[in-house]
Amino acid sequence: MRDLTRLILPTVREILRQGKPAQVREAVAALHPADTADLLLALEEDEATTLFRALDAERRVQVFEHLDADQQEWLIGRLGAEVMSRVLDEMASDDRADLFKHLPGTTRERLFPLLAQAERNDVKRLLEFPEGTAGSIMSTEYASVHPDMSVSEALEHLRRVAPKRETVYTIYVTDEERRLAGVVSLLELITTAPSRKVREVMQPRVVSLPADTDQEEVARTVAKYDFLALPIVDAEGRLVGIVTHDDVIDVLEQEHAEDVQLASAIGPTEAPYSKASVGLLIRKRAGWLLVLLVAGFLSSTVISAFEESLAAVVALAFFIPVLIDSGGNTGSQSATLVIRALATGDLDLGSWLRVVGKELAVGLGLGALLALTVTLWSLVWPEARHVAPVVGMTMVLLVLWANLVGAAMPLLLRRLGIDPAVASAPLITTLVDATGLLIYFSLASWLLGL
Amino acid sequence: MRDLTRLILPTVREILRQGKPAQVREAVAALHPADTADLLLALEEDEATTLFRALDAERRVQVFEHLDADQQEWLIGRLGAEVMSRVLDEMASDDRADLFKHLPGTTRERLFPLLAQAERNDVKRLLEFPEGTAGSIMSTEYASVHPDMSVSEALEHLRRVAPKRETVYTIYVTDEERRLAGVVSLLELITTAPSRKVREVMQPRVVSLPADTDQEEVARTVAKYDFLALPIVDAEGRLVGIVTHDDVIDVLEQEHAEDVQLASAIGPTEAPYSKASVGLLIRKRAGWLLVLLVAGFLSSTVISAFEESLAAVVALAFFIPVLIDSGGNTGSQSATLVIRALATGDLDLGSWLRVVGKELAVGLGLGALLALTVTLWSLVWPEARHVAPVVGMTMVLLVLWANLVGAAMPLLLRRLGIDPAVASAPLITTLVDATGLLIYFSLASWLLGL
Repeated sequence: MRDLTRLILPTVREILRQGKPAQVREAVAALHPADTADLLLALEEDEATTLFRALDAERRVQVFEHLDADQQEWLIGRLGAEVMSRVLDEMASDDRADLFKHLPGTTRERLFPLLAQAERNDVKRLLEFPEGTAGSIMSTEYASVHPDMSVSEALEHLRRVAPKRETVYTIYVTDEERRLAGVVSLLELITTAPSRKVREVMQPRVVSLPADTDQEEVARTVAKYDFLALPIVDAEGRLVGIVTHDDVIDVLEQEHAEDVQLASAIGPTEAPYSKASVGLLIRKRAGWLLVLLVAGFLSSTVISAFEESLAAVVALAFFIPVLIDSGGNTGSQSATLVIRALATGDLDLGSWLRVVGKELAVGLGLGALLALTVTLWSLVWPEARHVAPVVGMTMVLLVLWANLVGAAMPLLLRRLGIDPAVASAPLITTLVDATGLLIYFSLASWLLGL
Repeated sequence: MRDLTRLILPTVREILRQGKPAQVREAVAALHPADTADLLLALEEDEATTLFRALDAERRVQVFEHLDADQQEWLIGRLGAEVMSRVLDEMASDDRADLFKHLPGTTRERLFPLLAQAERNDVKRLLEFPEGTAGSIMSTEYASVHPDMSVSEALEHLRRVAPKRETVYTIYVTDEERRLAGVVSLLELITTAPSRKVREVMQPRVVSLPADTDQEEVARTVAKYDFLALPIVDAEGRLVGIVTHDDVIDVLEQEHAEDVQLASAIGPTEAPYSKASVGLLIRKRAGWLLVLLVAGFLSSTVISAFEESLAAVVALAFFIPVLIDSGGNTGSQSATLVIRALATGDLDLGSWLRVVGKELAVGLGLGALLALTVTLWSLVWPEARHVAPVVGMTMVLLVLWANLVGAAMPLLLRRLGIDPAVASAPLITTLVDATGLLIYFSLASWLLGL
């Protein structure tokens, strides 16, 4: 629970108990809609419903937009579609499309007829864009003006449409066919002579992206140019929407969450930890754990194949954990570096040969360092002295090999059209385990004459 | 290399070879400063210097701001402090402070006298804020107006100061002591009667944060409220700077990079992979690998302590990899979930008991599932059948234990004031290995009567 919510919760509860809508409205008027949304989540269901009903129409929309899709769905269920239809009509187009995307089919069917015709078409159009593309996160409420308008006409137009626009600070100049002709900022408009034409003031070169662009590339582009908003165009170059700076922050946070979950082999989940049930957590985590466990049976088989060598020199078993952990750690380091470089555009597939060359050198360096350490240690340990050369040589080869696998796997996955981040530390560890043990016991059989 | 850069590079090189500054300037006039910066990085050193010299003063500043601190440092070295002093005077205050933070002492001493007095004081003030705080990322170029100004006076003032401000879309209303009295948007100013007072139009409640706030909390606050900019205040509540939406994106990207590096035990580095030398990569990676290797020696010691049991039942060794990998995977899953929940504010230290309770249940569920799988598998494997009960029981206990360690470690680190993200998968794996093996061999000795 947020600090602010904790502070005001008792008072709000008391006012809600007295049940006077005007008082409730007044009490939360001082709050930012985002804080009101936090408050709503902290209240009991009945209290939350009472609070939301007491808000005036405009505030309802603002608060509703700050809730997650499943919280929105819950509220719709509680308040009835009729109460909600105005909220749905007036909310931002991207948030609305997002909500409909998450709603179960039956609720969606029930709500659709309640929307005004224009909003219904808008939702349908936005829902056609696949998840994760620019089209799926863009808003259709951009501000646009015609190049032949005068600056004063443009300003007059903007004042009128502003309440229904996501931003009027970046204004797109479009021709009759809605094709992007330029871009101009509100600042440029208010600091220039009102009689000039928009055409003379606008910047004719506009960075834009097609609606099927991956959302991560959209985020990267906005970050690179420090834009407030990025225009999205269709195949014919017509303006169809904008992605604003706050959408970009949401995309980055979402991609970040996905990346760290993948990196530790957790299935994708949007539910915050505190809200996730034990059952949900087990379901999201068990899948990968089981896959990795079954893949790990290969390691068991490798060891059992060398059962006699192991029985002859039990000291070989002492080093199984440090060897496979070192391989796993090295491989997941190189995988992380390459995944990150691919995600930020620092590397592309064309440079795979350079990556392999670099990681050969790095792997050799790291392998030598780790081998030296483990050899020195096993030499001073009387019970392990006779296996020291085997352990040292295995370490060099294993680290070199694991490092290459870790670096190559994300490149291979990207080449196959799979998210490179799937090459998680646990997956690489498991893959490298069996081969590492094979190297270890083969070397042992050979060097110790087993 | 970016696609656009690749396309224009040959032509730009040709023009640079002809050595006519006017032509160079014209050629890059069409490029966004961010693209010109990309171009500079792709050119040879001499070419880059020629290109930068050919730009006009205003464009130099814009391009320079899009370079990284070490690229900026390199350019200063090439062009001489005298050429650069105007660029330094005119660049955004937060970018300038960032540059000075990164410069080596001698260069800094040499550049300081070249700055105008006001800029010199500005840099000194900003450098006093510790790295990672709101103060260290804020800009001092905010737009502010007085509450008693009329709207038309305010607009006139904004038009005049706009070129020297990071943004004039969010305007802060401050009294004589620079204390925050309210906030108003440019949109509100241009859609209201010019004769009204700012005081009547402004929103008197302003969300602001003190300058010593952690930059991650700043980013979270901007993301929550969808702000363009967040005002930063000193201990007396006086406005000292703003953090803008593009700074927030940079913070998120930086924190993301740090998190994934920590998660796979890589030392923090800002250098992109493609630019990092083999030596740098080895240095950044070797530290943790060595620490983990040495910590792993404990596992070796545990196994050696049970050397006789192992010699009696060699089949016990078959399951060492799958057992310790399962423990490591489970522990790093719960660590990841708790680290993320702490970072997003979804969990705080006060809820540790709830986390432990939840993870006990989740660990038991996952442990039972994995134990069932591994037991079934070892039962159908003739050589391993006699150790199946030991392996199954160890799996339940180990997964339960690893899951708790993974969840508790980030909480403990946060309590000690250490970044919870230090509880990386490799660290948890290594920590759980030795205890897991102890459970395994103790159970084996007891159940098999070794």
